Amino acid sequence: MRLIAPDIQAIAQELGTLLPAHRFSIEPSTCWAYGMDNSRLHHPAHIVAFPEHHEEVRTLVQLARRYRLPITPRGRGTGTAGGSVPLQGGMVVVLDRMNQVLEFRPEDRLIRVQSGLINRELQQVVNAAGFFWPPDPTSQALCTIGGNLGCNAAGPHAVKYGTTRDNVLGLVAVAGTGETLIAGTQTTKGVVGYDLTRLMIGSEGTLGIITEMTLKLTPLPDAVRLMRIFYRDMHAASLAVSRLMNQPATPSAIEFIDGNALNLMRQYSKNPETLAIPAQAGALLLIEIDGLAESLSGQIEKIRAAATGHAASDTAPLALSIAQSASEIAALWAARKALSPTLRHIAPKKINEDVVVPVSRIPALIAAIDASAAKHAIKIVNFGHAGNGNIHVNLLIDPQDPSQLAAGDAALAEIFTTVLALNGTLSGEHGVGAVKREYIRAEIDPVSLALMRGIKAVFDPDGIMNPQKKLPDDTQ
Amino acid sequence: MRLIAPDIQAIAQELGTLLPAHRFSIEPSTCWAYGMDNSRLHHPAHIVAFPEHHEEVRTLVQLARRYRLPITPRGRGTGTAGGSVPLQGGMVVVLDRMNQVLEFRPEDRLIRVQSGLINRELQQVVNAAGFFWPPDPTSQALCTIGGNLGCNAAGPHAVKYGTTRDNVLGLVAVAGTGETLIAGTQTTKGVVGYDLTRLMIGSEGTLGIITEMTLKLTPLPDAVRLMRIFYRDMHAASLAVSRLMNQPATPSAIEFIDGNALNLMRQYSKNPETLAIPAQAGALLLIEIDGLAESLSGQIEKIRAAATGHAASDTAPLALSIAQSASEIAALWAARKALSPTLRHIAPKKINEDVVVPVSRIPALIAAIDASAAKHAIKIVNFGHAGNGNIHVNLLIDPQDPSQLAAGDAALAEIFTTVLALNGTLSGEHGVGAVKREYIRAEIDPVSLALMRGIKAVFDPDGIMNPQKKLPDDTQ
Repeated sequence: MRLIAPDIQAIAQELGTLLPAHRFSIEPSTCWAYGMDNSRLHHPAHIVAFPEHHEEVRTLVQLARRYRLPITPRGRGTGTAGGSVPLQGGMVVVLDRMNQVLEFRPEDRLIRVQSGLINRELQQVVNAAGFFWPPDPTSQALCTIGGNLGCNAAGPHAVKYGTTRDNVLGLVAVAGTGETLIAGTQTTKGVVGYDLTRLMIGSEGTLGIITEMTLKLTPLPDAVRLMRIFYRDMHAASLAVSRLMNQPATPSAIEFIDGNALNLMRQYSKNPETLAIPAQAGALLLIEIDGLAESLSGQIEKIRAAATGHAASDTAPLALSIAQSASEIAALWAARKALSPTLRHIAPKKINEDVVVPVSRIPALIAAIDASAAKHAIKIVNFGHAGNGNIHVNLLIDPQDPSQLAAGDAALAEIFTTVLALNGTLSGEHGVGAVKREYIRAEIDPVSLALMRGIKAVFDPDGIMNPQKKLPDDTQ
Repeated sequence: MRLIAPDIQAIAQELGTLLPAHRFSIEPSTCWAYGMDNSRLHHPAHIVAFPEHHEEVRTLVQLARRYRLPITPRGRGTGTAGGSVPLQGGMVVVLDRMNQVLEFRPEDRLIRVQSGLINRELQQVVNAAGFFWPPDPTSQALCTIGGNLGCNAAGPHAVKYGTTRDNVLGLVAVAGTGETLIAGTQTTKGVVGYDLTRLMIGSEGTLGIITEMTLKLTPLPDAVRLMRIFYRDMHAASLAVSRLMNQPATPSAIEFIDGNALNLMRQYSKNPETLAIPAQAGALLLIEIDGLAESLSGQIEKIRAAATGHAASDTAPLALSIAQSASEIAALWAARKALSPTLRHIAPKKINEDVVVPVSRIPALIAAIDASAAKHAIKIVNFGHAGNGNIHVNLLIDPQDPSQLAAGDAALAEIFTTVLALNGTLSGEHGVGAVKREYIRAEIDPVSLALMRGIKAVFDPDGIMNPQKKLPDDTQ
């Protein structure tokens, strides 16, 4: 879309009748600042607006519709797929002032909040009453609940507690039509109407803007332990993951870290003694066990047996220890969560993928990734949420070097082909956004894609909601 | 729709080129038999077809589309809302010959099956490998997995393990367009495209016919106990339910039975000693606890404390006992599950509702139901899944007696108004079907309803898929 100066002035004038002057801007510096997220994409907005409640969002979408103005919702911009970058300019609707708790009812295991509330702030409110909300992306300290719903975010604890879609009861949104949409219930059962709640979750702002949500809460476990198990290589570790998922004691997290990532930890960790990495170790599993205090020892025995397998085999663990204290557990999680920033430090423009395969197929995927890395002479570091088969594949290349970029692209194409051949999916939690949209034709068949476009047209008849995101370009 | 004899002959002739003669019928007796389900509605089909695999279903939908023929999918017809009654005649597609296990991968905690497989047969297959599939409607021995998805079925264990939508990874369907739709993944994470899996789940055959599904499996618990607690009245029992949900040991079922239902058990039970109902008891909670064997005693203590509350208060339990053996547990569940047939026996045409309210609001709902029963001089028996706030409200009237029918309708209208005022929903698991569709305008706002109709038009452009179901009549 081409927006010309007189249009912007007219829209700004009309905006001035809807919002106080300090809650919208057409200043180039502001429009520049809200043109980025945690991808490397950038495009300035023409207008940035800061609504404080649902009705203001509705007014903004109606205004945008009158002017056929592209509209891109955003929380804190922590997404890595470019989902909140206004690729066509237009209006960015910043939701982080909508950060209120509307209603908290522990006795019904629910809380109603506005979409700009920060995930960690939500947790603090509900923790105090003995509950938590399971989705816990690494960006938890910064990301908004609205963004979590938009992307169907997850994190380490999804293996036991599910992803965002499993932990939301209902929501309020403004559809691309400019109308208020009320979906879902305040109850854990409900079958009246079609499931618009889960249709909106993961739609990345392309159907409308989620403004309020009713979240399903889970009781905090009594006690937590963290098992740390080193293996010779990823093959041995991923066989252990299959065994872990094929027995009744489901860990609350199964994180894995490959040999290249362990080398980074050896080299860059501020507290290498925290991990105590054996010299021969080529893979690490961090396995969290939670529950009632008296249930832990039984769970740990089952999990230890599954993680060990045949002790005599060459895929048996090299070392196993169990962190008991809260401080030791926190230090281990900090070491795990430092991996992404460390990778950014040594390869600022790394490509970070987010593929998923069925758990039993992790060994096949890891073997294929290793083969691609060797073939194209690039370094690939893998870590992630093994219990869900969700692998963060980090290609440590400089995309500004054409030969490295070509090697990275070729390796990625091979990896994606393998993921789909193993019945996996190209994104587990980061979303499609702008950066992955052209790949997903390989995953979604044309009939399903046509149905999705049909749904998009119902919710957003003018195509103003977060254009060029989520679904592939339909002009090809 | 009016279908005339020459049309039927022409369609039958064409069907003969698609299916062997023994797998479709236009015989009036067959068309009559497949015109009913477990509601009291009946309308004969014009044609009944028995496909054996996905491609045959696709061919049938394409044929129906060419003739603008209404098409009603059905499993075993156990639904109570009339969802599989062909109200306009047309073609009934009976899916119960599509009952194959396509692929079972315990190491990935998944199984792929055809939609006509019986729930109990599925459980037998996966139990043998240490897993179960959580949805467990009372009709488990008879109902199909396809029907479970169509209605988003649940059952007693949803309080801990979720409903159907929480336990499906992906599915294959034939959309109303006659095309094959492939939705979801084989993994527990996945954010590529819109969530068509959960859009199809609970859509009651109005968007298409689900033919195959990939189910997420859960490990069988090591051990199970069943606590039986009698209270003076429903008010005391429902306060206990609120306390039970506001602490960390989540039971695997919290079933409640009210005083009228206890009287029926006293009167009709074949083994009254199984329950040992105290004379003053006006309510019963059956609380199931499962998990690793060594975790049970700790859970039981937490649950006993929550169920008891202030022991000195007049809402404290009258009696509490814990069944340990599998046979004792099975006998208690049998007594609970005998309630519905007993009610059918004493009031064959009873009205059975399926409302849900947030757990803390159960006392308010029960009080309102009691008031309506007294005001209209009818008998109402309540039982259900208290942990989800899901109450089966049984109005013991004879709908063929006009004065009883009027009293029942008036009471029901009051109850529904109360349910919605308490932020509840009109159906938790039975579905909307034909019998509840005109009530749901009170629950779904016009904007959401218009969006649902828009989705319906995308998936079913000719309006042939299970007409007059799920959404209210749009001609009004």
